[in-house]
Amino acid sequence: MSDARRSHNNPQLNANGELTHLLSTEGLPREVLTHILDTAASFMEVSERDVKKVPLLRGKSVFNLFFENSTRTRTTFEIAAKRLSADVINLDINRSSTAKGETLLDTIDNLCAMHADMFVVRHATSGAPYLIAEHLARVGRDDIHVVNAGDGRHAHPTQGLLDMYTIRHYKKEFHNLTVAIVGDILHSRVARSDIHALTTLGVGELRAIGPQTLLPAHLDKLGVRVFHDLAEGLRGCDVVIMLRLQNERMNGALLPSAREYFSRYGLTPAKLALAKPDAIVMHPGPMNRGVEIDSEVADGAQAVILPQVTFGIAVRMAVMSIVAGN
Amino acid sequence: MSDARRSHNNPQLNANGELTHLLSTEGLPREVLTHILDTAASFMEVSERDVKKVPLLRGKSVFNLFFENSTRTRTTFEIAAKRLSADVINLDINRSSTAKGETLLDTIDNLCAMHADMFVVRHATSGAPYLIAEHLARVGRDDIHVVNAGDGRHAHPTQGLLDMYTIRHYKKEFHNLTVAIVGDILHSRVARSDIHALTTLGVGELRAIGPQTLLPAHLDKLGVRVFHDLAEGLRGCDVVIMLRLQNERMNGALLPSAREYFSRYGLTPAKLALAKPDAIVMHPGPMNRGVEIDSEVADGAQAVILPQVTFGIAVRMAVMSIVAGN
Amino acid sequence: MSDARRSHNNPQLNANGELTHLLSTEGLPREVLTHILDTAASFMEVSERDVKKVPLLRGKSVFNLFFENSTRTRTTFEIAAKRLSADVINLDINRSSTAKGETLLDTIDNLCAMHADMFVVRHATSGAPYLIAEHLARVGRDDIHVVNAGDGRHAHPTQGLLDMYTIRHYKKEFHNLTVAIVGDILHSRVARSDIHALTTLGVGELRAIGPQTLLPAHLDKLGVRVFHDLAEGLRGCDVVIMLRLQNERMNGALLPSAREYFSRYGLTPAKLALAKPDAIVMHPGPMNRGVEIDSEVADGAQAVILPQVTFGIAVRMAVMSIVAGN
Repeated sequence: MSDARRSHNNPQLNANGELTHLLSTEGLPREVLTHILDTAASFMEVSERDVKKVPLLRGKSVFNLFFENSTRTRTTFEIAAKRLSADVINLDINRSSTAKGETLLDTIDNLCAMHADMFVVRHATSGAPYLIAEHLARVGRDDIHVVNAGDGRHAHPTQGLLDMYTIRHYKKEFHNLTVAIVGDILHSRVARSDIHALTTLGVGELRAIGPQTLLPAHLDKLGVRVFHDLAEGLRGCDVVIMLRLQNERMNGALLPSAREYFSRYGLTPAKLALAKPDAIVMHPGPMNRGVEIDSEVADGAQAVILPQVTFGIAVRMAVMSIVAGN
Repeated sequence: MSDARRSHNNPQLNANGELTHLLSTEGLPREVLTHILDTAASFMEVSERDVKKVPLLRGKSVFNLFFENSTRTRTTFEIAAKRLSADVINLDINRSSTAKGETLLDTIDNLCAMHADMFVVRHATSGAPYLIAEHLARVGRDDIHVVNAGDGRHAHPTQGLLDMYTIRHYKKEFHNLTVAIVGDILHSRVARSDIHALTTLGVGELRAIGPQTLLPAHLDKLGVRVFHDLAEGLRGCDVVIMLRLQNERMNGALLPSAREYFSRYGLTPAKLALAKPDAIVMHPGPMNRGVEIDSEVADGAQAVILPQVTFGIAVRMAVMSIVAGN
Repeated sequence: MSDARRSHNNPQLNANGELTHLLSTEGLPREVLTHILDTAASFMEVSERDVKKVPLLRGKSVFNLFFENSTRTRTTFEIAAKRLSADVINLDINRSSTAKGETLLDTIDNLCAMHADMFVVRHATSGAPYLIAEHLARVGRDDIHVVNAGDGRHAHPTQGLLDMYTIRHYKKEFHNLTVAIVGDILHSRVARSDIHALTTLGVGELRAIGPQTLLPAHLDKLGVRVFHDLAEGLRGCDVVIMLRLQNERMNGALLPSAREYFSRYGLTPAKLALAKPDAIVMHPGPMNRGVEIDSEVADGAQAVILPQVTFGIAVRMAVMSIVAGN
């Protein structure tokens, strides 16, 4: 497929509207999202029948390109790829050729020449996976696929998709749900990916809860209702998505102490009681217990935080097998 | 199996007395020890017939959780797991979520949710693998198994077991043997694992040789004869287990210099001549040549240090296949 | 085979003249070089038929021993070994037992005892892979093979071989070619490996181009014509091998700035026009664009830098399968 036939806004879809890269949940049509979730559901079924491996990527080489360290995310992709029978090559990019002055795209060209079939990319810079996907199109390598495993503050689409899987698993439909995202939305690529996916999937009402300093501007333009008071925002919610307080991303911001933050935005059993009785509590992990979430909630009956992780393997298998053309 | 039915002292055995975790050689019944050694012997036979792989753990995921770095031990477990056809995931835990404030048990819960089947755990804190095993029992995950690959000063049971394998291989029986452990017993988890295993297997006489400052108190209560003089302690020994001088563990202790130590406790050909003529010399590695052992001994005919490494692969295969229920 | 029957100068060949280790292109007979290139060509054919894996090393354990970090080279060996169906164990040696005072040869003995079949060795010290190969012969382990993945300034034979593959692929014959190597030849193990291989394969004319300070003495004794002027040296060349400016190896040398260097020795389109119109441009990577090579040349029609990488996988598969006796 020629570059010209790709939509500039949607380099992740090919001319037939099929997913060829996963870069963002933004701009993915509802049917593509649903296809991913359905495929993941089929992998969950296979897994429950204790079939550990499927041969969909046998002989394919998946490169984990983690320019930013994330053992957790890398591990889930590695497990997903191995369950699809792929060969996985982990590249610790901080220590590699880029440190010797090689450009990102030279590195990519080299890996392409090594018969790579898929790049799973984590990068501190927003847009890096787009740059790679656009470069692959420019050099005519449409047989190589990019999966964004988190880029800067921009997107973390597989986390967004596993959140959608989790919500659909427990709540079946989206249109009648009130979903609240709580915490540091400004720095959260997870929040951004969730908001786009939930909007496309037709969520009933979407809320953002947090202090002014941790909310991006113009959330209302995305159809999100903003709350600065946790109690008020939780009232009547079906789904509560807690975010991690990303201390490591907040450079010099005027921040409340962890204790202050917990007293205002920490999810306690008392606060959770304001949501619907059957509300589920989600968290992308790793959790800061006692900062954004009380242990009683994290380990309680309404938390679906560990099932999220399990669904995440199936969702990543689905994404990798779909972009590879299976 | 419910938590209640486990013996508090023996969380590694299930209600039927079968090995479900390997946490320590302490408290393991003689028949369990012997079963592990017999199973390892069968893997040695398979290996000598040049059969490189057996399918006992095909489709299983073994996680190497090394909270403390040890390339050597990690590699032996990785090789053993791959020979059992398992998928191996190496986690560099120092750089992972625990560094972001996640608790050990949250990390474990997450890995369980990623379909882990076995954790091989190395940790600087004594008892960490017990904590994990008890947590797994508490959350009802008796399908996941823990193998202790060394915890603090406490235990290194697979090293203890491969030492038993080595002694049995060269000496057949335990009851008529005099075994001496030489050196820094105070800081040695290997020594502790050896002492418990040798005692259970009915060793004839067990000796500890070292300076007062490097021997734990109350060795006599474990039935160990204490010697401070190397020559005296070696007299009549069938097996000499040299320990590594763990400089990295001795914080501020009043220590002899390496040269002084060698002159008093280094194993030279002259000293070794005091043991029985057919005595074997063992060492868990890595050796400090010229500190605790003379190169002439290390490379001599009585040294069985490299066979120990080979037996170690078979013993780790045996432990992993047994706890996994094969 | 006994140690005595090996030629001291050629520990890489066994008594039958077969390749048992790959340590250097120096001293390799023409028929051995040609056999490697022919075998690599057969793997290229297999790969073009989209057969991703061949079972030649099934059940074998290949250890990547990288005492010096090189993600790029390690990755190509890892991919090559996996395509031969080997198990690959990556050892991060900087952090391992050698840091605890264990000697290189003790480490090797231990890995041998772990059933290693092949060591791929990268080391900052010239001669380290020889030391290992000689040790294996001394202890009678002729079933274990060493492949040099770069030792100090000495040799990088698989890079040399892939360069030969590339030249043969584009130019068919060697005897009628003029080949120029440009840049920091003094610090380049690649240059040394290229010079020996080209000489053995009977290259027409071999040139070295660079400032006096970056050329080794006595190049003329190796049959190499020396040029200090890039334009002069390039005239009439069929093949131009650019070298990376190894800043990290130049300690305190009186060096030109990158800008000065580029103005004198950087390969620009204008300079390249002085070579034959169908000259090919090679580079071992990673490139310093704007230092030793202009981007227009690096990305131009005469550059075969990315095909080199692809050929490199096939060449490494060939070397590994040949030394292992297939």
